[in-house]
Formats: sequence, C-alpha cells, structure tokens
Amino acid sequence: MTDLVDPALIDRLAEVAIRTGLNLQEGQDLILTAPVAALPLVRRIAHHAYRAGAGLVTPILADEALSLARYREAGDHSFDRAPGWLYEGMAKAFEGGAARMAIVGDDPMLLSDENPEHVARAGKANSIAYRPALSKIANFEINWTIASYPTPSWAARVFPDLPEDQAVAKLAEAIFAASRVTGDDPVGAWAAHNAALRTRTEWMNGQRFSALHFQSPGTDLTVGLADGHEWHGGASEAQNGVTCNPNIPTEEVFTTPHAARTQGTVRATKPLSHQGSLIDGIEVRFEDGRITEARATRGEAVLQKLLDSDEGARRLGEVALVPHGSPISQSGLLFYNTLYDENAACHIALGQCYSKCFLDGASLSEEQIAAQGGNSSMIHVDWMIGGAETDIDGIKDDGTRVPVFRKGEWAA
Amino acid sequence: MTDLVDPALIDRLAEVAIRTGLNLQEGQDLILTAPVAALPLVRRIAHHAYRAGAGLVTPILADEALSLARYREAGDHSFDRAPGWLYEGMAKAFEGGAARMAIVGDDPMLLSDENPEHVARAGKANSIAYRPALSKIANFEINWTIASYPTPSWAARVFPDLPEDQAVAKLAEAIFAASRVTGDDPVGAWAAHNAALRTRTEWMNGQRFSALHFQSPGTDLTVGLADGHEWHGGASEAQNGVTCNPNIPTEEVFTTPHAARTQGTVRATKPLSHQGSLIDGIEVRFEDGRITEARATRGEAVLQKLLDSDEGARRLGEVALVPHGSPISQSGLLFYNTLYDENAACHIALGQCYSKCFLDGASLSEEQIAAQGGNSSMIHVDWMIGGAETDIDGIKDDGTRVPVFRKGEWAA
Ligand SMILES: [Zn+2]
Ligand SMILES: [Zn+2]
Ligand SMILES: [Zn+2]
Ligand SMILES: [Zn+2]
Repeated sequence: MTDLVDPALIDRLAEVAIRTGLNLQEGQDLILTAPVAALPLVRRIAHHAYRAGAGLVTPILADEALSLARYREAGDHSFDRAPGWLYEGMAKAFEGGAARMAIVGDDPMLLSDENPEHVARAGKANSIAYRPALSKIANFEINWTIASYPTPSWAARVFPDLPEDQAVAKLAEAIFAASRVTGDDPVGAWAAHNAALRTRTEWMNGQRFSALHFQSPGTDLTVGLADGHEWHGGASEAQNGVTCNPNIPTEEVFTTPHAARTQGTVRATKPLSHQGSLIDGIEVRFEDGRITEARATRGEAVLQKLLDSDEGARRLGEVALVPHGSPISQSGLLFYNTLYDENAACHIALGQCYSKCFLDGASLSEEQIAAQGGNSSMIHVDWMIGGAETDIDGIKDDGTRVPVFRKGEWAA
Repeated sequence: MTDLVDPALIDRLAEVAIRTGLNLQEGQDLILTAPVAALPLVRRIAHHAYRAGAGLVTPILADEALSLARYREAGDHSFDRAPGWLYEGMAKAFEGGAARMAIVGDDPMLLSDENPEHVARAGKANSIAYRPALSKIANFEINWTIASYPTPSWAARVFPDLPEDQAVAKLAEAIFAASRVTGDDPVGAWAAHNAALRTRTEWMNGQRFSALHFQSPGTDLTVGLADGHEWHGGASEAQNGVTCNPNIPTEEVFTTPHAARTQGTVRATKPLSHQGSLIDGIEVRFEDGRITEARATRGEAVLQKLLDSDEGARRLGEVALVPHGSPISQSGLLFYNTLYDENAACHIALGQCYSKCFLDGASLSEEQIAAQGGNSSMIHVDWMIGGAETDIDGIKDDGTRVPVFRKGEWAA
C-alpha cells in the first residue's frame, strides 16, 4: 500500500481523536468501530489510546464488500436479523465504563442500488437491536466521539470525476483541514476552537432569546426557541464526568427550538443527502411550528415521505449556527455525510430534539421536555439553510432585536 | 492489491469451509473471526454463507498491528484485561443457534519479541474471559470449523528466505493442496476423504485395541488406550445435530490414551513450535503413563516448563494416526501452526483429553472420564512422533498383535 494519505497527519488526527475527541481516561477501555479501509487511522488511534493509559482497545471492523454480500446473496429472512448479542455486549461495556469511538468513512451511497425494502428492514432491525447501546450515547452517559477517514469509496462519491488517488488526496486534505490537525499543535488548536465556541454558547445563553429570525434570499423564518433551552457547542461534559468533543470536526452552536413556535418560509442552501437519495431545491412553509407546504426541485417524493414519517417529522428538533467562513463551508464540498455537511452552514433539523439542550436536561422527564416545547420523532434530519447572505436577529420576550449573524458571520 | 493468491481457489476454499467445514444450515447465523489480511477469503465466505441461507454473518476482524500496539504502548494494568462483554455475547449467540468459523492466518510468532510476562498474563485473562464461549465449542454443542488463509506475515515465517510474493504464493499452494480444493469438485473430494477417514475409524473401533505399540528409530513406545475409548476422524456430528468438519485440513484419526498406561521411549520427528519458541530433538521416557525423563537439543528449558504446567502436563491426552503420505507431510513444510503440523505425522498430545473420544462421551461426568483413564490438564500440546519408518501394532487384551502402520502407512 502506498501512502496516499500523509501518515503524519493521520497520526495527528488519531491523537486529537483520543485526547480531545474522547479525552480518554487512564484505565478506561475503548470500543472502536471503523471500516477496514480506515485501518491506517485505527492503528494510530490504538497507539495513542494505549499511550493515554487505555485499559483495552477493542476494534469492531466493518467491510463494505461484506455488507454488500448480504444484500446480493441473502434470502429474504435475513433482513430482519441484527447482531443483538454484540450490541447488548457493547451496552454492558459502556455500563462498565468503556468509552466509544466511531470512525466514519464508508461510501455514503453504499446501499443506494440495493433493494430498498431490504435496506429499510435491515436498518430497522439494526436500530431496534442497537437501542440499548445507543441510548447510553444519546443520553451522553459516557464520553464518545466520531471522527473520519478518507477512504477510496467515500472519496469517489465526493469527487466522482477524479481518479482514485487524486480523489483520496483531496478528501484527505478536506478532512484534515476541517478536523483542525494541519498545524503543529492540533490539540492546542482544538483547545482554542473549543474556547471560541464556548464564548459563543455563553453569549447566546446569556441573551435568553425567545426566537431567532433568519433572513436571506428565499428565507424569512422565525424559529421560536424552547422554554428553558440551553445552547451547546464544542466540548461538553458527559454524565461520567469526562469532558469530550463528540464530533470531529464541529463548528456548530445549537439548541432546541419550540416545536409549535416556528413561522415563515425557508429555502435550503445546499442539497440534502438522505439515505442514498439527493433532495435539492427545498422550499418549505411553517405555520405554528408545523410544515404546511414543502417543495423540492429534485427528490420531492423522498422529501414528502420523510415528512410523513410521523407527526414530529414536520416540526423542528434543532437549530444550529455555523458561520459561512467555517473551514468546511469554505471547502465548498458536499460530503454526503452529516458529520461534515451540517458543519458547513446554519441548519435546522426535522424531528427529535436533544434533551441535553435544556437547562438541567438530564433530569427532565419526556413529558417535561415536551411541555417545554421539545419535539419528538423517530427521525432527526439536518438541512442547511445558511449561506453568505444569512442575517439572523435574536428576539427577546419584550420584542427587543439583537444582531446575531450578519452576511453569514457572527455579528459580535 | 494484486492477486497474489488465485481468486478461483479462494472461492473454492470458501465454499468448502461453508458447505463441508460448517455445513451451515438454512437460517443459521454465523460468527466469523479472521485476520484483516484474510479479507479476500472472508468476503467469499460471506458470499457462500448467504447463498447457503445464512441468517446474519457477523465478522469480527483482528489486525496484527492493533494487537502489537498494546504490547508496545499499554501500561502494565492493561495486560489483565479481556473483552468479556464480547465473548459473553458470542456464548449467547451460540446458545441462540449461531455457528462459528475461525480463519487463522496470523504470524505464529507475532508476540515472540514482546514482554513474555505481559503475553502470558494477557493470554490468561483472555482464556478466562473466553471460557463461556469456548466451552460450547469444546463440548461440540454447535457446528464449527477452522480454516486458514496465506497471509504475508505467516508466509514470511514459513519461507523466511523468499521475497514476500513468492512466500505467499508457496504458502497458498500448500494451503490449497492440504485443504483439498485444487480439484474441480472440492466438496466431492471432501466427501470421499471423509468416507476414507470413516473407514479407518470404524476399523480401529472394531478392533477394540487396548494399546498401540510404536516403533521407529529412537522410539519404542506402548500407548495404552483409555477404557471405552472411541476413535474419531473427519466429519463428526455436533450436539445440535449438524455434521461438520471442525478442521480444514484434517488427516488424523485420533482417540484418548489411558493416562496411566504409557510405557517406553519416544523421539519427536519434527520440531515443536510452542508460543513463539521452537523445541527440537525431543526425547522422552514414560513410566506408567508419566514422563520421567525429558531431553531436547534445543529449547529444553521451555519443554521442562511446559511439563511442569500441572500434573496432567506429563501425561497423554491424545494419540493420533496420520499416514506419512498425507499431503501436508509430503509438503515437507513446518507451518508453525497446529492445524497443519499435527496433520503431517502421527502425534501424541500432552495434557487434556477430548471427552468426545469416549463411547457416549457427551453423557460422562468428569469423574467417569478420569476413572476410564482420561487425562486432565490446562494444556493440550501436540507433538509429532511419526515418519517414514513408523511401524505401529495394535495390541488386544489377550495379547494378540495386529499390524496398524507399516513404514509410515496404514498396513491394511
Ligand atoms: Zn447540528
Ligand atoms: Zn442535527
Ligand atoms: Zn490431533
Ligand atoms: Zn491435539
């Protein structure tokens, strides 16, 4: 294997993933999922994990060809199965104190040519089986992080017109820049980035806005915020007391909208890649928090099906602020991967809200969260509404307006 | 990646592993462990598993560099850890009906340069954690099989003087020949081979020998057989009712000796590779089943330590007959891997016996097995005592002698 990807940068990303992403503790075990194609990164992660005092690093490696073999050869009965024994074991390991890292790098469209009914059933069976482990991550009971690796299959999707080696090199460049590991002191760069995000979240939390008003070409949208909402961004403390960065990269400052208080029209600024389909030219009208009209110039049927998933699918679960100057936005690329694409622009998400985006959220019941305006749904789909023209005002209870974004950047 | 190993033969080995090795049943799940370097075989195994009606194939892939990272970087505390959550999950999957396949291919000397105390402690922690899953395999509760793949690191150990591509090609040739997949109908070839082995086991079982007398240069050894012993070889029925071939390749016909009834001297005919050390020129004297003298021209200290493992380590747990003309023997290679080396020559094993090598063995208690002469120990180490000169007589209760082997081959 030749070094298509710079080993020094792989090593820096591994160190950032362990020290900043996970903040792995002395003696803590680590469960690490990754595609086989990401092994050069996985090996350096194991190195840095043990250097940081890891107990035991257990890799669970996936392979695209193995995944496809099932869709190509298995009988119909296979598509309701899932490795429950493995996920229940993971949940047990998390209860025992293990941390969790995921490396993403699979082709985002891997299953787009397979039988959609089989894909949907297998996905559902897997989601149900994974729930005990996922809930510990979603409730932030443990320190966890997601980082990524420029695999050939993902690179081919982002740069379909380039030969493989050039596509990989370009995707690598974009990943390393977005992950802030191109400088001499990436861990220091992340500390500075986290401090900058903290300044933003503290300012937003101090303002106690009741709504945000987005204005840009095609958009005139007022997003009401949930009662007792809390802004988050960058490093955050898990319930096990470890402060970690769950996403590498991350650029967003985000909170929970009120499910019944969004009004107006919004035009998406980027295509939305959803389960192998592309939805482009989205325009939507909200009335009292609910989408009452939705159009798309491409993939409108997929969009309508998405909105019909359940009642919460037509309401917002997240609003997030990302400056137009963010490195991911500046790359101008569509990564077909939410970890990247949601950090390229201000976005809203249809569906489920995050309980941690409420003051004292960990102690609130589902009923309390709903009463404060938190949305609930099976889905959580982010789509980009920000760009170079985006202006945002914060609106307080008394009607006072405060500039938050001007021309796509933080106003203050 | 270029095709160092012929894809057509990889595919045949995969088909034999699924159809003959495992005899995978419609709807049965499969847990498959393998080194990442064996992925070309693992992918074809998944293909044939789903074609055979597999429910879900769950691969658990290991990587030598990841294993080494621990020995190189981890703190002392790491070496008492093991992924109990994973092994307990596997045991649960076996209880739920899953089959088990292992692909071997790691460098047999991978850990030979690491801290031996860490290697020993990590091995022990792993053995203890693995016990719930291993016991279901050892008790033959499920259909399982082991096959192998010619990885570069293993090939380099077998052919240290060849460049990597030639070493891999030579090891591949040896593995495919030994695994009987070089002909047009490998599944048919295995059916014929299993039938031939069954003829041998039935003949041996019909004779009801009380002892075997081995004679060759340096060897004059009488191995007493356990009361109610049963000979096994080739395909065999697991407790779940599935007939499978637990080892690919396999050449041996084997049973349980009586722990107190072996007399005489024996000289090993091949070096013994044990946990990264080579023991050569072994000569041993047995009195009443127990080794009372042991010498080796190389690695004698390792041999003595092995014999001191526990009381059962000085007594026999297996005696196995392999003709000198077996394909593995004819290759003339030392594979440093018991799956191969034990199928190259008649062998005996120090340590633990197999309960299935007793008539009605599954229903016997440990006490009954011991009373019939079955040995017990933490270890089970096979070493080769057969060669071109080996003569074996079967001895009956009345003293009648029947030729079993002459000049290294079956006499009848
Ligand atoms: Zn977001
Ligand atoms: Zn989101
Ligand atoms: Zn044997
Ligand atoms: Zn053995």
